Amino acid sequence: MHADPAAASWAQTTPSPGIVLSTAPFEHVIGELRTEIDDLVVEAAPVTVIAPPVISRDTIERAGYVESFPHLLGTIHNFDGDNRDWGSLRADARPGGSWHRRQGITDVVLAPAACYHIYPLLADKPVNQVGTTFVVECYCYRHEPTAELGRLRAFRMRELVYFGSARDCSDWRDHWLDRTRTWLTKLDIAAETRMATDPFFGPGAALMRQSQTQQSLKLELVAPVSGDQQQAVISGNYHRDHFGQKFRIRTSAQRWAHSACIAFGLERLALAVSHARRA
Amino acid sequence: MHADPAAASWAQTTPSPGIVLSTAPFEHVIGELRTEIDDLVVEAAPVTVIAPPVISRDTIERAGYVESFPHLLGTIHNFDGDNRDWGSLRADARPGGSWHRRQGITDVVLAPAACYHIYPLLADKPVNQVGTTFVVECYCYRHEPTAELGRLRAFRMRELVYFGSARDCSDWRDHWLDRTRTWLTKLDIAAETRMATDPFFGPGAALMRQSQTQQSLKLELVAPVSGDQQQAVISGNYHRDHFGQKFRIRTSAQRWAHSACIAFGLERLALAVSHARRA
Repeated sequence: MHADPAAASWAQTTPSPGIVLSTAPFEHVIGELRTEIDDLVVEAAPVTVIAPPVISRDTIERAGYVESFPHLLGTIHNFDGDNRDWGSLRADARPGGSWHRRQGITDVVLAPAACYHIYPLLADKPVNQVGTTFVVECYCYRHEPTAELGRLRAFRMRELVYFGSARDCSDWRDHWLDRTRTWLTKLDIAAETRMATDPFFGPGAALMRQSQTQQSLKLELVAPVSGDQQQAVISGNYHRDHFGQKFRIRTSAQRWAHSACIAFGLERLALAVSHARRA
Repeated sequence: MHADPAAASWAQTTPSPGIVLSTAPFEHVIGELRTEIDDLVVEAAPVTVIAPPVISRDTIERAGYVESFPHLLGTIHNFDGDNRDWGSLRADARPGGSWHRRQGITDVVLAPAACYHIYPLLADKPVNQVGTTFVVECYCYRHEPTAELGRLRAFRMRELVYFGSARDCSDWRDHWLDRTRTWLTKLDIAAETRMATDPFFGPGAALMRQSQTQQSLKLELVAPVSGDQQQAVISGNYHRDHFGQKFRIRTSAQRWAHSACIAFGLERLALAVSHARRA
């Protein structure tokens, strides 16, 4: 799967590509990273929230995620029939059977990023307390089957989320990208800053690359996770007032809040730390 | 929602019933519980696995879960169409819109219990190393909308899983139910043992209660989680050779492995601990 056998021992693969079980020593590194991230942010007196891997479908629809990333979103369906319906399906409830012909969509989806759990907490109030930093962690899911090291479908993201004016949020994002890059250097991880290039479905429903302007809103710190591979381990996003408008989060009666976030990919960071320790 | 206001402060509700965001102090209690559980089991030199909230659909089909609990299982679907397909759906990608008309089932589902992650690790080998204790934790999902305290749809389960002969597994389960009940007493939690009564879809596809024999395989420790409510906080299950047969896990060329598990419901245990500390 990859050239660095030491990097392969952190997890057990499963029958589903990109879904892995992690080991106790690897979890220990993830625990250390959580503590370090919390120490970095402690002076901001953040509000910390631990979130489940599922989130209200309405929240993800309202955030505009569905429009741009329908191919990555995992929706939760269930069997909502009765005894009679199940009677005609039960015989197919075997591996590979078509027992799922009558699944219906539920009110929840898999969270594609941790910060989506925060916006509803501030939504629809007349004027919000801004300047607060949130810390939020959850398992995220993106439907991109792959067996590449560190490119998981289910992964943990710990995020800092901040609300304020345009200037505040832009400065906050840049400050935190500098700060986390310095932090990585102390962990012997040499990271490079680059603009993100995630493909998405644009207005004409064409799968496209992000424009230069969009790219400048999302910056990534890219680091070696094995001898022959680099990956984005931290990303810093300035959302302008996108979420402020969508969730009606106001800094005053006249203005929508702007927001920004710093996302730590915990598995990839732990891989980068483990790689640096082996070097 | 419930009579005990102190119990309400551990989590923030979300627009989806049974999906909550937990607070830092509550997470601290969950962290303490993890350490205590690990201390209880350390002498068994367990293999510890941290698992994501999603699991191979094939594993859950093979385990026989779909047959009995189709109403609780959350399946993951996604949009697997192309640009042209999305072109006709994109305009509906708004809250409450029908953009999800073309979702298709994927290869993963939400894990209904943590132990399902373990069986595939031992499957299909000529003879397995039994007598090993596994510790596995993941977020689990069961589709039972409710606003009752502690009855969550997405919740964390830490489980001990053991494989051996029929006698070994039955004794192991009883030993661990005694041991965890004593442990709860030390935490000032007075737990009662009772037989589980989860309804399930039986052979005639009728939703039924478990028989006495089935009930005796699944025992629960029930404890106060608030001033007016008791819930199952730990369950002990002896599976006979159900999973041994389904996953072809053998103790010898002639025999299927038996298995048993002890499941700790981390949110409910943390509620019970918090309630006991307030008393």
